[in-house]
Amino acid sequence: MDLFYAPLDEIKKVRKEISDPFLRAETLADIFRINTLYMIKLAGSGHIGTSFSAMDIAAWLWLEEMENPNARDSKDSDIYFSSKGHDIPGLYSILIGLEKIPFDFLHKLRRLNGLPGHPDISIPFIAANTGSLGMGISKARGMALARRLKGEKGRIYVLTGDGELQEGQIWESLHPAANGKFSEITAIVDHNKLQSDNWVKDVSDLGNIEDKFRSFGWEVERCDGHSLREFVKSLREIKEAGIKNQKPQVLIADTIKGKGVSFMEPHNFKGGGYKYHAGAPSDSDYSAAFSELSAALNKKLESFGMSALKFEKVPLPVKSAPKKPENPISAFGEELVRISEDRKDIVVLDADLAADGGILGFKKKFPERFKECGIAEQDMVSVASGLALEGMLPIIHSYSCFMPTRANEQFYNNASEKKKIIYIGTLSGLLPATPGHSHQSVRDISAVGSCPELIMVEPSSEKEARLAIRWAVEQNVASTYIRFSSVSLDLPYTLPENYDFKKGQGVLLKEGKDAAIVAYGQVMLKEAILAAEILSAKGISLAVVNLPWLNVLDREWLKDLADFKIIFTLDDHYIKGGQGEFLAAEISRTFDKPPKIFSFGVEDIPVCGWNDEVLKYHGLDSKSLAEKIEKIIL
Amino acid sequence: MDLFYAPLDEIKKVRKEISDPFLRAETLADIFRINTLYMIKLAGSGHIGTSFSAMDIAAWLWLEEMENPNARDSKDSDIYFSSKGHDIPGLYSILIGLEKIPFDFLHKLRRLNGLPGHPDISIPFIAANTGSLGMGISKARGMALARRLKGEKGRIYVLTGDGELQEGQIWESLHPAANGKFSEITAIVDHNKLQSDNWVKDVSDLGNIEDKFRSFGWEVERCDGHSLREFVKSLREIKEAGIKNQKPQVLIADTIKGKGVSFMEPHNFKGGGYKYHAGAPSDSDYSAAFSELSAALNKKLESFGMSALKFEKVPLPVKSAPKKPENPISAFGEELVRISEDRKDIVVLDADLAADGGILGFKKKFPERFKECGIAEQDMVSVASGLALEGMLPIIHSYSCFMPTRANEQFYNNASEKKKIIYIGTLSGLLPATPGHSHQSVRDISAVGSCPELIMVEPSSEKEARLAIRWAVEQNVASTYIRFSSVSLDLPYTLPENYDFKKGQGVLLKEGKDAAIVAYGQVMLKEAILAAEILSAKGISLAVVNLPWLNVLDREWLKDLADFKIIFTLDDHYIKGGQGEFLAAEISRTFDKPPKIFSFGVEDIPVCGWNDEVLKYHGLDSKSLAEKIEKIIL
Repeated sequence: MDLFYAPLDEIKKVRKEISDPFLRAETLADIFRINTLYMIKLAGSGHIGTSFSAMDIAAWLWLEEMENPNARDSKDSDIYFSSKGHDIPGLYSILIGLEKIPFDFLHKLRRLNGLPGHPDISIPFIAANTGSLGMGISKARGMALARRLKGEKGRIYVLTGDGELQEGQIWESLHPAANGKFSEITAIVDHNKLQSDNWVKDVSDLGNIEDKFRSFGWEVERCDGHSLREFVKSLREIKEAGIKNQKPQVLIADTIKGKGVSFMEPHNFKGGGYKYHAGAPSDSDYSAAFSELSAALNKKLESFGMSALKFEKVPLPVKSAPKKPENPISAFGEELVRISEDRKDIVVLDADLAADGGILGFKKKFPERFKECGIAEQDMVSVASGLALEGMLPIIHSYSCFMPTRANEQFYNNASEKKKIIYIGTLSGLLPATPGHSHQSVRDISAVGSCPELIMVEPSSEKEARLAIRWAVEQNVASTYIRFSSVSLDLPYTLPENYDFKKGQGVLLKEGKDAAIVAYGQVMLKEAILAAEILSAKGISLAVVNLPWLNVLDREWLKDLADFKIIFTLDDHYIKGGQGEFLAAEISRTFDKPPKIFSFGVEDIPVCGWNDEVLKYHGLDSKSLAEKIEKIIL
Repeated sequence: MDLFYAPLDEIKKVRKEISDPFLRAETLADIFRINTLYMIKLAGSGHIGTSFSAMDIAAWLWLEEMENPNARDSKDSDIYFSSKGHDIPGLYSILIGLEKIPFDFLHKLRRLNGLPGHPDISIPFIAANTGSLGMGISKARGMALARRLKGEKGRIYVLTGDGELQEGQIWESLHPAANGKFSEITAIVDHNKLQSDNWVKDVSDLGNIEDKFRSFGWEVERCDGHSLREFVKSLREIKEAGIKNQKPQVLIADTIKGKGVSFMEPHNFKGGGYKYHAGAPSDSDYSAAFSELSAALNKKLESFGMSALKFEKVPLPVKSAPKKPENPISAFGEELVRISEDRKDIVVLDADLAADGGILGFKKKFPERFKECGIAEQDMVSVASGLALEGMLPIIHSYSCFMPTRANEQFYNNASEKKKIIYIGTLSGLLPATPGHSHQSVRDISAVGSCPELIMVEPSSEKEARLAIRWAVEQNVASTYIRFSSVSLDLPYTLPENYDFKKGQGVLLKEGKDAAIVAYGQVMLKEAILAAEILSAKGISLAVVNLPWLNVLDREWLKDLADFKIIFTLDDHYIKGGQGEFLAAEISRTFDKPPKIFSFGVEDIPVCGWNDEVLKYHGLDSKSLAEKIEKIIL
C-alpha cells in the first residue's frame, strides 16, 4: 500500500500564502497531522491520539507565540517541551515543517540515527528528555532558575497530559514553583480525558483539576484547545495575570484525543479499549484517516482560493512477522487466573497498563479483586504493602522501566516489612527499541535486585512463565519480581520436558564443550542459540544455559559450570548491576580455579530503532555475539 | 548524671485513679513525655520535638478512641500508625505505659534487640514500617482495601507530619483514596509547622493545606492538637461527616513542636536551627526539661488530690567519644565554598537536610545560588536537570537512603541527558545504626550505580573529600555521586602525601603479602586496618587497599592486585550490587588466572543499635573480620 506526506515545498507555500495567523496555524496543523500520520504508519508505532490532540496548541506556539523557540544559541529564547513526551511525533512534524529538523527525518521516526520514540535533546530544538511522566514542571523550574541566575529572560511552556497529573511529582513540583513566583512558567494541560486506552475518570478520576492547581497557588484558566482564537485569548490573559500576580500559570485546554479523524475521536467511545493511543493504525484506518484529513485540508485551501496540496507517495515497506511467536505474558495471565480460583487472598493492582500486563483475564474474572491504580506507581507499591500487612497477596504490575524506579524506595520499604508481594514488570530489556530509552528497561535488576526478600526471575518462554508465577505464589515465602520481555518471538529452543523450576538453578538449552554462554529471557536466549549455531558451523561448540534467576544462585548447581574454561554472560540489561556481574562474582567466590568470564550486555544509554538494528548497534545480535566469541575462543 | 522515668506501677495508678477520660489522657500524656525524654536521652538520639507535638493526639487515640488498637489477632480492630514515623519514641512510651510492650524496653530505645529508631512491625502493636516519608496514606488504603475484601471492619488512623506533605506521594495517594470512598481512613496532620530545624513556611511553604486536601476530595477540619476536648470534638465530627459523605478525612491538628517543655517550644524561634528536632538533649537541657515536665505533672496530680509521682532513677552511662575525629563532610563543604568563588555556574540544591550536608557555608556565602527544595527529592533531582540543561552545574544534596531511591527514575532521566550534575549523598552506609533501616543506606550503589554517565565515589577522609569534589567539578566531564558516611571517627590510616585521586584507581593504605582487603569510606577502612592489626599479631600479613571508586575501575591499576592469591572485598553496602561484586566481576574478566575472592558486607536488612553492636551483629567489626579472614587464609 501507499503512504502520503506533504513535501516541504507545499508546506512552505502554505506558510507563505496564508497571511491570517489563525487560519495559517489551523491549516498547517492539518498538514502536520497528515505528516504525523505518515511518520507513525511508516514507523509502525507512535502515539497518534495525543499527537493530534496537542497539535493545534503546539503548532500555534511554534508558529506564532514563541520568541526564538528552543534556540540553544540564543539568550532569552522561549522554551517549549512536552512533559509527557508521547506527543513527540506531532512535534517532530512541526519542527520538520518549520525546517528546524532536516526534512529527510520525516522518514526516520523511531529508526536508528533517526527520531527517537520519546524526546531526546540529541535532536535539534528538543529542550529536555521526557517520556517518563511527571518531571516537566520540575525541569521547567530548573531552567527558569538558571535563566534568573544568568540574568536571561524567556518564557517556558510545558505541555502535560491529564493522566500524567496522577503522578505525585506533578503535585510535588507545584508549590515550589508558586512559592518561587515563577511567573515565567506556563503549563498547558492537554486535557483529552483519555489515558492510554481508557477514560481518565474511570482509571483514577482527577476531580476538579482547576481547584487543585488553584489550591497550589497557580493562576488557572480553561479553554478549548482546538479553537485557536479562544486558546490564544486565554493564553494571553493568563500570562498577563500570572505576571501581575507573580504566579506560574496553568491553562487547562480541553482537547479531543485523535482530533481531526472522526473515528479516532472518542465521541462514541464508552470506555475500555480506545484504539488510537499508541501503535500504528491499520492499513485501512490509515487510508481512511488520510482521506478524511486531506479532504478537510483541501476544502480549507479551496476556500482560501488555493489549489489542492500535492502529496508525495511512498510505498509502505513490508515487514516480516514471527510465524508462531511465544507470548510468555499471556501464558502468565492465564496461569494467574487458574491459580486465583483457589487463592482468594490474591489481589491484582495495575498502574494504567493492564492490557500490557496479561492481567485483563484476571480483571474480567475477579473484578472485585482487581484495582486499577492509575499512573501512580509509588502509591500502588505502598498500597501493596498495606494489603500484604493485612494478609492478602498483592500481585502488582507496571512496566519495568517505571515500577522499580519510580517507586524504588517503596520497594525497599516493602522488603523491610518482609511480607510477600509479587511484582510483575513488563516491557523489560532492550527491546522493543522503538519507544526509546525512557521505555527500555535495562536498569531494573540493579535498581531493586539488592533488596533482601526480593527474588527476581525472568521467564524465557510460555512454559517458564507459568512455572514462575506458580513458584512465586506457591513456593517462594519471600517476594518475587517476575521480569517479562514484551517482545513475542519465534523461539529456537524449548525447555526440557521434565524441567523443574528450582531456585537459583539454570538449565542447559544446548550442549557444548568449548565454552558456555549464560543468558535469560527470550530475547537474549534466542540470540545466544543463533550465535551458537553460527559458531557450530565454524567448528566451535558453545553451550547455551538458561538461567532465569537474576539475583539468586544455587552454588551447588553452579558447579555444573566448573568444566567450562570460558563462560560468557549475556544480559538484557546493563552489564553493570546485571545478572552477569552477579554470576561472575559468585563464580569467583565459589570456584577454586575460576574460569575466565566475559560479559556481554548493554553498556551505554540504549539507542532507539527497529529491534534488529538496535541489537546490532549494541553488539548483541547473534552475528556480533558469534564474532566476539570466536575472537575470544580462538 | 541521673535520668528519671515513671515506673509501671505509678502509670497504672494514674490510669486507675483518674476517671475523667480527658484529664486521664492529659495526665498520662505528661507522664509519657517524661518517659520519652528518658528514652531519648538514654539512647543518645531520637526525635523529641515531634514525639511531644503528637503526644496528646496519640495518647487519646490509644487510651480512649480506638477499638482493640493494632491488635493483630483481632478482626475489626482499629489501626493507628504514623506515616512520618519520627515520633516513634513517643508512641513507644505510650505502648510501654499501656503494657503493650514489655516495660523493660523503655531502656532499649535504638539498641540491638530493642526498639528501632523508626517503626518496624517486628515490634508488637506497630502496624507498618515507616520513617521514609509520604507512604502512610497509600499503606492505609491498602489495609482498608484488604479489610473490605475480607469483610472486616475497623478504622485506620494515619498520622502525618506537615513537612511530610511536601512529598509527592502524599498527593498521589489522595485522590485514589477519595475516589474509592475510603471513609474508614482518618489522616491527622501533626501540624507543628517545623520540619527538621526550620519553619515549613521558610523551607517550602505549603500554603493553605485545608484547601489543598479539600480540592482532592477529602473531608477537612482543623483543630488545636493540644486541647483534647477540641480535638475529640473535631475528630468525631469529621468522622461522622466522612461516613455520611463517603470521604476519607483529614484533621489538621495545630500542634507545637517540643510541646510541654517551654524552651523546646519554638515560640521565640525565628528560623534556622531549631534545636530539638532530632538528637538527645544536652545534660542541662535534659535536667531542665525533666524538672519542668515533672513539676507540671505533679501540680496536676496535686489538683486531683493525688500524691506526687515516684520516679525511678538511673545513672546515665558514659560513652567514649572520638578524640580527633575526621569529618569529611565538613571538609567537602569548605572546599566547595573555595571552588565556588570562581565557578559562578555552581548552584547548590538541598532537600531539607542542609545542616547534615556540609553546605551551610555555601548557603551563607552564596545565598542567591543556594536553593532549599524541601522534602521533595523527585522535584529536586529534576530541577537539577533543568539547571544543567541551561548550562549551570547543580550540586544537590540529600541522604543516600532517600535521594537515589525516591528519585531513582529522575536520576536515570538526568543520565540520559548527559549533562553534568554532582549528587552529594550523606548518611551513607550501615552507620549510624541508631535510626534503623529506613535511614541506613546500604543499597544506593546498586540503586543508581548502573546509570551510565554517573560515577560514584566515597571519600575515606577529609583529604580525599576535598580531592573528590575538586575532581567532580574540575575533571569529570560526566556526573558524579559523592557518597559520604556521616560518622566521624578517629582514623588509623592516612593517605600518602603525594596521593593522586585518579579515576578507577585504588591506593594501598597498609602493605601485606598474604592477601589484600579492598574497601572504601572511613567506617569500613577503619575496621579493615584494625583487622589487619589483629591478624598481624597472629603472623598474617593483610594488605589494605582504599578504593574510593564504587562503579568504575581502571583495569591497568587492577593489575596491582594480580600478585595476591586471595582478595577480600568489604562493602559498607549490601554485598549484592556493591563495590565488591563489581570488583570481583572485573577481576574475573581481567585476570587470566583470577585470584580467589571473598566478599564481606551487609546481607540482611540492617539491624538497629549502637554502632559497635551493629557492626558486630553483621560480622563487619574488625574482630569478626579478622576471624573470618584467618579461617579462610589458614
